[in-house]
Amino acid sequence: MKSDVIGKSPTLFLASLLGLLLMAAALISVPVNAEDGYDLWLRYPPLEADTRERYRPQLRQLVIPERERSQTLQAIERELVRGVGGLLASAPELRERIEGDGFVLVATPQTSRAIRGAGLPLRDLGDEGYLIRSATLDGHKGTVVAANTERGLLYGSFHLLRLLQTNTPLADVDIASQPRIGLRLLNHWDNLDRTVERGYAGQSIWDWWNLPDLLDPRYTDYARANATLGINGTVLNNVNASADSLTPRYLAKAAALADVFRPYGIRVYLSARFSAPVEIGGLDTADPKNPKVQRWWKDKADEIYRVIPDFGGFLVKANSEGQPGPQDYGRSHAEGANLLARSLAPHGGVVMWRAFVYQQDNPEDRAKQAYSDFVPLDGQFDDNVIVQVKNGPIDFQPREPFHPMFGAMPSTPLMMEFQITKEYLGFASHLAYLGPMYEEVLRADTFVKGAGSTVAKVIDGNLHNHRLTGIAGVANIGSARDWTGSIFNQANWYVFGRMAWNPELGAEAIAREWLQITFGRDPRILETGLAMMMASRQAVVDYMTPLGLAHLMATGHHYGPGPWVSDLARPEWNPAYYHRADRNGIGFDRTSEGSDAVSQYAPAVAKQFASRSAVGDDLLLWFHHLPWDYPMPSGRDLWEELAHRYDRGVQAVGKMRTQWRSLEPLIDAGRFDKTARLLAVQEREAQWWRDASIAYFQSVSRRPLPEGVSPPPETLEYYKAVEYPWAPGH
Amino acid sequence: MKSDVIGKSPTLFLASLLGLLLMAAALISVPVNAEDGYDLWLRYPPLEADTRERYRPQLRQLVIPERERSQTLQAIERELVRGVGGLLASAPELRERIEGDGFVLVATPQTSRAIRGAGLPLRDLGDEGYLIRSATLDGHKGTVVAANTERGLLYGSFHLLRLLQTNTPLADVDIASQPRIGLRLLNHWDNLDRTVERGYAGQSIWDWWNLPDLLDPRYTDYARANATLGINGTVLNNVNASADSLTPRYLAKAAALADVFRPYGIRVYLSARFSAPVEIGGLDTADPKNPKVQRWWKDKADEIYRVIPDFGGFLVKANSEGQPGPQDYGRSHAEGANLLARSLAPHGGVVMWRAFVYQQDNPEDRAKQAYSDFVPLDGQFDDNVIVQVKNGPIDFQPREPFHPMFGAMPSTPLMMEFQITKEYLGFASHLAYLGPMYEEVLRADTFVKGAGSTVAKVIDGNLHNHRLTGIAGVANIGSARDWTGSIFNQANWYVFGRMAWNPELGAEAIAREWLQITFGRDPRILETGLAMMMASRQAVVDYMTPLGLAHLMATGHHYGPGPWVSDLARPEWNPAYYHRADRNGIGFDRTSEGSDAVSQYAPAVAKQFASRSAVGDDLLLWFHHLPWDYPMPSGRDLWEELAHRYDRGVQAVGKMRTQWRSLEPLIDAGRFDKTARLLAVQEREAQWWRDASIAYFQSVSRRPLPEGVSPPPETLEYYKAVEYPWAPGH
Repeated sequence: MKSDVIGKSPTLFLASLLGLLLMAAALISVPVNAEDGYDLWLRYPPLEADTRERYRPQLRQLVIPERERSQTLQAIERELVRGVGGLLASAPELRERIEGDGFVLVATPQTSRAIRGAGLPLRDLGDEGYLIRSATLDGHKGTVVAANTERGLLYGSFHLLRLLQTNTPLADVDIASQPRIGLRLLNHWDNLDRTVERGYAGQSIWDWWNLPDLLDPRYTDYARANATLGINGTVLNNVNASADSLTPRYLAKAAALADVFRPYGIRVYLSARFSAPVEIGGLDTADPKNPKVQRWWKDKADEIYRVIPDFGGFLVKANSEGQPGPQDYGRSHAEGANLLARSLAPHGGVVMWRAFVYQQDNPEDRAKQAYSDFVPLDGQFDDNVIVQVKNGPIDFQPREPFHPMFGAMPSTPLMMEFQITKEYLGFASHLAYLGPMYEEVLRADTFVKGAGSTVAKVIDGNLHNHRLTGIAGVANIGSARDWTGSIFNQANWYVFGRMAWNPELGAEAIAREWLQITFGRDPRILETGLAMMMASRQAVVDYMTPLGLAHLMATGHHYGPGPWVSDLARPEWNPAYYHRADRNGIGFDRTSEGSDAVSQYAPAVAKQFASRSAVGDDLLLWFHHLPWDYPMPSGRDLWEELAHRYDRGVQAVGKMRTQWRSLEPLIDAGRFDKTARLLAVQEREAQWWRDASIAYFQSVSRRPLPEGVSPPPETLEYYKAVEYPWAPGH
Repeated sequence: MKSDVIGKSPTLFLASLLGLLLMAAALISVPVNAEDGYDLWLRYPPLEADTRERYRPQLRQLVIPERERSQTLQAIERELVRGVGGLLASAPELRERIEGDGFVLVATPQTSRAIRGAGLPLRDLGDEGYLIRSATLDGHKGTVVAANTERGLLYGSFHLLRLLQTNTPLADVDIASQPRIGLRLLNHWDNLDRTVERGYAGQSIWDWWNLPDLLDPRYTDYARANATLGINGTVLNNVNASADSLTPRYLAKAAALADVFRPYGIRVYLSARFSAPVEIGGLDTADPKNPKVQRWWKDKADEIYRVIPDFGGFLVKANSEGQPGPQDYGRSHAEGANLLARSLAPHGGVVMWRAFVYQQDNPEDRAKQAYSDFVPLDGQFDDNVIVQVKNGPIDFQPREPFHPMFGAMPSTPLMMEFQITKEYLGFASHLAYLGPMYEEVLRADTFVKGAGSTVAKVIDGNLHNHRLTGIAGVANIGSARDWTGSIFNQANWYVFGRMAWNPELGAEAIAREWLQITFGRDPRILETGLAMMMASRQAVVDYMTPLGLAHLMATGHHYGPGPWVSDLARPEWNPAYYHRADRNGIGFDRTSEGSDAVSQYAPAVAKQFASRSAVGDDLLLWFHHLPWDYPMPSGRDLWEELAHRYDRGVQAVGKMRTQWRSLEPLIDAGRFDKTARLLAVQEREAQWWRDASIAYFQSVSRRPLPEGVSPPPETLEYYKAVEYPWAPGH
């Protein structure tokens, strides 16, 4: 995976060498590179011999017209040579034109007469969609990857490789695909000192100090991995931003990355600190109404576009957790967002304005505050502003209901913010496949325009007819050799990207795809791996925050249990604020008897959430405060059910360990061993969560442990005293 | 380089697969892995065909008796199979006994009857030395690697591989080698949050958070790389230590690393914070005379040895730059060191007590203070204490005279502290081979027992007959893929290790060896690379601190020039303290007319240093304050010579760039390109140092620029205003 090397050598020569080498590797059945996870889903080890034989006649020649003049076409060529060459253990021949059966033609109507004449239905594919289709052209049979743009070709070519990686037959292939969402972005919470907020996979991959002089080959591989998924933008720096990112020195660094990413269809965005005009501009105010401030941002935008002509725009965290913002000057979020938007508009840039706000001095239920702040502003945002909303109303908990803002601002485009890094789901060490969580949110029905008004339809613009649409994932990427700290964490980056392209894809289908690409096609791996992945997120919910509980973690680093914490300065930072457990019961009453957060949802949803029986176990205590002896559908009472869920979570991890062990003969030693060790960590920590939580809640409920539930091995004081002073990501 | 994989598969099977694969690779002349620097000097690409043919009959069988029962012997076997298999593109056969010509027998007298009967001169080789010798045993011709211990065999086996890597003929080989110094250690200034003080190659390789659960394959490769050089110990944590390193949780992590390192002969040491009894022991004092404190350290040592039975001991920075120490309680350094030494003595551990001290309130020349503090304590340290002294009296400057303590404490063992990381020589980005600097210091003559009383003989114990001897290098290692941030930085780790084994080895010979192993044996690479390396350190001296100047860098991060800085709280933190430049002249008078630092050296040395004519250009301004028009041997006056040196330094870097460019056809793209980019950075920064320094010194001297010296392109105010807020390693 050294694109610099590949770039230097004549591709044709290299391709044949690569083929030879891979044949040799296949022959003696040992991988050329040990599996250390670096390759992500860009793994191209030789397929089984019969599969290779089946594909080979279909993939003899690679025809990419006019590739000399385009970096994107050259990137496509490199990837297809590498991918097809690796998977088939023999590289395709590069041809200028179709010369026989078994061609792969990668072209737009502009680059190929054959495509122009083929009458392909390209019109509705937009500027990122593509077709992959069996075709007879110039009297020869082959496969066409066609699109209106080179970016479409890029995505189509990666899709073609995915077909091979998953052994999908090519005969009579007919695929048309285009993204449902426009902005498909990673958000890096990466600081300029190379620490990563909530990052658990080593330091930032952006080597800011050595940029723009050094260009780590990782930057190219990052772009390749993202382009595979259709991710088309990346916010390089933390939303808790330093204004230094906007200085000329750092813009040159961002520009160097933009140059690497551009051939792969990825635009660079920056988090902008609202007070930058003061900090690096020498002004004494950042008031959006101040003409000097307006001028400063306009000049800054002009400066940025001079060095990054396709700069995407700004992401802003304002008046949130201590960050500066327009409210510091008595202005609204809309006025703040529009200030930046107007500086970017002449260049086609966008502002992604985060809705993650809650106020220290606001006694309102924290779950309600973002809605209360933003919904009244609906209609006041400029056209190139999109409001970025976390999936749930609190903060990336293992389970939350969908955010009530979705559907509630019909005149404002809203984009989704998912967290890929597992701040609240066990850092990098726990196996938790987030696909089911993303799916749960995307498929949730807001009912704002009747049944079927899903969150997916809000963010893809269909529900309220927005053209500006977006989805962002807070990256779990770091300098760890395997990028994400574990092999299974890679699946969360993968599923985010795939769902960003098409939010109606299913988590299970994507997991299956990822497993095949990552571990090969042995059905035992598929079956067992799929069972592990699909059960994993609920396991975390059960051993950390069962039955709709939330925010029970220790302070600051968010590692480990801390349900007893109730002495922090801001009420809503305390776990006790969320669970509200006492002698009589547990849960947060968000019905009309309580905070009435349910009223922020459409009536049908509000009614369901407000009903103890209809809300379901999964969100029960999110919306209801109930007595410990409340009878649950299981036949247990609430206290018994709570204890049962904790036990169930721990048991689920034990089962994952057993399942993984059964795969030992099928998986390379490096990846098997690391995963096994991490599952051992997870089981130990699941047990700790369970023990500490039961010890605490029992101290509050003063109820005997249900039969069959073993007492925590230590006292509550012991669990309270546990400290982890060097936890990462904080 | 995935030892886990190798460890899992049956070695014989793997060896043959590896051979096949490497043959295939050789056949098509493309490396199996792209050269990303990860392999360090453990590179085993196939030798030229004729060389392979010459070696092959001599390396047919590998015989390692009793390897089943020893992790070290298994490590030897893995390395020889990998190394010989790679270099010869065919692995040796593993045999239980000598079965024909071409054997390599790796054995001690305990493991092999043949060795016992061979009458080899092993007696004087100690427990780390070895023989490599052609021999006829059991009627067959072959090569013997023999030693008294398995560690000796380990070093001998790595030496055998080095012979192959450098194409040294094996016929009639007869080598006996043993280390001249006992403790050969790396010091990691690595913090528990994984930052590295003065580290410029990414974060710490110690993933403290995931230890002991996860064992990165890097740990094994780190041990292999060090064992190659004979490094036999590593201090895991920063001398500015957290007491947390001594808590049970962190001791378990250190123990896991010790387990990985043990087969490779590497012991683990820890930096100990002197106030740990207060911070983690619950005591209210750390006074060495307090029985509770003594008890606490004794118990702590017992606890450590329970989990790390071969724990090496403590490194301590005390009463230095704000660190706690015995002087906080009115006790001496000796009393502090002996406190810890007595806790370790029952277990055979040592205390390495650093002499890097200088006092905020002490008006004495900083260069004199360590000597003044420590020399009066000579004879007061316990037997298992060794005092660790930096190579020069200030702090790892590009050039310093040797430290006056060397030779001045005959009753106390002194160990050398070199800095491998380039805190003051351009971070990771400048090419500066430190071999000549180490050599200069080691060969410096203290004259304390007449001519020939070299620093090397002080630290190897010969001069004053000490058995406890040591040398430490502050590591330049991080999580960067190439470990050290650049390929050429690897040479500094390498040369440190080789000189630690034998401080009389020459820097040039080691550079030649390293170049061959790193880039292959093309004579053009050797010649050009050697010229670059050997000139590189003087180039840094010239463009940063010419003519004996020192400590002219910017504050805090130590990046870039700051000769004008004179407003820091402590006088000796200011560059102006060191250069003492004014209208009339420049330099620090350390003769008897000045600080009299020369008097700390033996009379012969003091006389030389005190003489303007005898001291030499290299240390002139270290010891003398001279008028700007002082006539230099070159015929220039001092001001002209200073400007000339700055220009010469910049020109030397320009020459290195040209030299490197000439190698482009001979070096793989990845390593060529990165090095070329770094040299461009270096030239730009050399120019900056030169420009800023000349601008400043001219503002002080108010002399016209000498003819041919171009004026700095910016004003002095410009250079003063340059800021680098996110510099690494601080």
